[in-house]
Amino acid sequence: MNAEIMAVGTELLLGDIVNTNAQYLAKELALLGIGIYRQTTVGDNEDRLKKALDEALKESDIVITTGGLGPTPDDLTKEVSAKVFHQELVIHEPSKRVIESYFRNNDRALKNGNLKQAMFPESALVLDNPNGTAPGCILLGPNNKFIVNLPGPPREMIPMFEDKVKPFLLQFMDHTIVSKTLRCIGLGEWDMATRVKDLIDDSVNPTVAPYAKDGESILRITARAKTEEEARTMMAPVEEEIRLRIGDYIYGTDEDTLEEIIGKELLAHNRSIAIAESITGGMIASRLLSFTGGMSKVLHEGFITYSDAAKVKYLGVSEETLKAFGAVSEETCREMAEGLHRETGREVCLVSTGIAGPTGGTEKKPVGLVYIGIYMDGETKVFKRYFTGDRDRIRLRTTIAALDYLRRLMKGLEIEE
Amino acid sequence: MNAEIMAVGTELLLGDIVNTNAQYLAKELALLGIGIYRQTTVGDNEDRLKKALDEALKESDIVITTGGLGPTPDDLTKEVSAKVFHQELVIHEPSKRVIESYFRNNDRALKNGNLKQAMFPESALVLDNPNGTAPGCILLGPNNKFIVNLPGPPREMIPMFEDKVKPFLLQFMDHTIVSKTLRCIGLGEWDMATRVKDLIDDSVNPTVAPYAKDGESILRITARAKTEEEARTMMAPVEEEIRLRIGDYIYGTDEDTLEEIIGKELLAHNRSIAIAESITGGMIASRLLSFTGGMSKVLHEGFITYSDAAKVKYLGVSEETLKAFGAVSEETCREMAEGLHRETGREVCLVSTGIAGPTGGTEKKPVGLVYIGIYMDGETKVFKRYFTGDRDRIRLRTTIAALDYLRRLMKGLEIEE
Repeated sequence: MNAEIMAVGTELLLGDIVNTNAQYLAKELALLGIGIYRQTTVGDNEDRLKKALDEALKESDIVITTGGLGPTPDDLTKEVSAKVFHQELVIHEPSKRVIESYFRNNDRALKNGNLKQAMFPESALVLDNPNGTAPGCILLGPNNKFIVNLPGPPREMIPMFEDKVKPFLLQFMDHTIVSKTLRCIGLGEWDMATRVKDLIDDSVNPTVAPYAKDGESILRITARAKTEEEARTMMAPVEEEIRLRIGDYIYGTDEDTLEEIIGKELLAHNRSIAIAESITGGMIASRLLSFTGGMSKVLHEGFITYSDAAKVKYLGVSEETLKAFGAVSEETCREMAEGLHRETGREVCLVSTGIAGPTGGTEKKPVGLVYIGIYMDGETKVFKRYFTGDRDRIRLRTTIAALDYLRRLMKGLEIEE
Repeated sequence: MNAEIMAVGTELLLGDIVNTNAQYLAKELALLGIGIYRQTTVGDNEDRLKKALDEALKESDIVITTGGLGPTPDDLTKEVSAKVFHQELVIHEPSKRVIESYFRNNDRALKNGNLKQAMFPESALVLDNPNGTAPGCILLGPNNKFIVNLPGPPREMIPMFEDKVKPFLLQFMDHTIVSKTLRCIGLGEWDMATRVKDLIDDSVNPTVAPYAKDGESILRITARAKTEEEARTMMAPVEEEIRLRIGDYIYGTDEDTLEEIIGKELLAHNRSIAIAESITGGMIASRLLSFTGGMSKVLHEGFITYSDAAKVKYLGVSEETLKAFGAVSEETCREMAEGLHRETGREVCLVSTGIAGPTGGTEKKPVGLVYIGIYMDGETKVFKRYFTGDRDRIRLRTTIAALDYLRRLMKGLEIEE
């Protein structure tokens, strides 16, 4: 079973609002195991809407529209959908009564346009709308194809889909769909695709698909089965195989975040952490503190040591080291981490120094050169990286890399240099 | 001139990410006076993509695609676009050199898939990508139709459209479109709309449109005219009228950021700043340091004083004050700001304390209660606010409010309480 998702509305077409309905419906249909052929956005224009519906019904069994069910002459979705199936609109008495009572209760005069919202083809399955005035409907056409007309506002559309359309669609399904997301850091999209390429290419059920987001690489395993349990059983060996190949890069699954993984690890072992940031200037601490699970138990203080003098004063970096090697060097980074431990006594001390640009780079030390230092268990490790991008991109990638090195060290994982 | 906007990517089709690119492009094309016929989203599937492109080119003069330019075999947009125009791909030497040097600088081995990103039809206009590895292109086809292939990530797509595609499209236009954005803080979208409602409603050319983004309110003035100069002359009196009504809330225009305005103000008056953050935990410092204009001259150090003990140790907050009033109180906030000045001697000292949640709130001090303290010119001011939203939203709104209070104080503007 295939579907097309069609948003109707000039305000969407011209970019006045973002089409979040398409994302919601796409996710829901995918979970139901309904293939999504295409998503389309068309304006409030009868000819174009009719053409789009005709085209969509050539390829898909279901077209789900959002928007264009209102009382104004611009609102054409239901009228055009009926026309596509050669059906006439008549008054739907229950909807008429609901609309009349709505206007009575709100002391507003009922106008002709409002009753337009109570007109449906006789064979339509009308979907009442407890959150607005426009009911939706399911129109049945030739060849077992159908069109579902839903209202545009998400707070009306989502409950209508959830409560009425989903149960209707489930009648036709004999299976369920389950997905699991594996979240990776430190492995480019291309590297990841290469290492698990055969698993991606050969995957049918379960399928394996890669994508990238905010500096992370993501792999999604999806299985279709009679029951959720069966789907999970089918997915387990695929996940196991992926973990054998790139397990060290996988920091979490589904809704996990890096700060959550680190926060939980610190809390579980009752290890406190201090942070001193030069290039990232607060970004690492800020990110760790966005974890909601009780960071105040383990993160008590941090420093932004942006100038050389601050590195000397708060972390005890020696002026000789700064003079001989510069603020962006392995030596300074090491002294920052060790000095932070001396100053705070924290079990884990994480520091950053680097050149975020746009100025300040040299041939030997270009913009994007970064050192990350971690003191832990009596030992200090310093990692050197080069990042590309603008100032904030370099700072963000430094933050992600710093958190990932820390995750690996705490979990005793190997770190490639 | 008509365009279709086409997003390519299974992750979009299945609803893993929201298609914000379509909104951006729709707005930009509308401003250029290019009609938008339709927006489409298709998956990474050669046949369907080809069919969608063929259909789109029947109705539209331009198809703008986003996504599918990466190195993996899944990335097909450029290949299929060329096929639609019966063009062959060849190596584009300048792009090849850029990709090779990227891999050299990152000590990574170049693989065949990566060079796929340097393949273009010979007649293509290649659009280099300073923000990523995938260049875009403009393909010219029969009947003066063309396809523009842009990368999927907004931070790569937007500058490429702005810097390369827009000037290309403007060649075909007999008018120019000029916009100016006024950026406001501290004034809700609704308040702003009310105070300038008539200017918005009655606007034709120039138009005035409000929108909200990342805690800011934005007003955009747009004029269409034969020349940029003419457009700017038309816009000037409109801007003047807006500034008369809500001038104090406008912190900047166009690409200005709050951190830039503050950074420039500090640098201009050679005032140094120190920051101590509890609730925001590095977010304020991190944001100030994203300004590229030389913050190292004025921002030398900062503290994350998350625990009570850190507030005592680094800022000299008295234990009695903490005991009597708590860490989230006007008294503690004032001592934080004054202590930070004593410790660092900086001319401007900015501090934050508050309850970000989700736990830790009480009836008297609910989640979202925040104090912001600013020491300047021998005086300490403390501002109390209540913010709603989740933990990170409260922290972000605190950061923006803190920076805006600082801006107002430095500029001698009135502050409503």
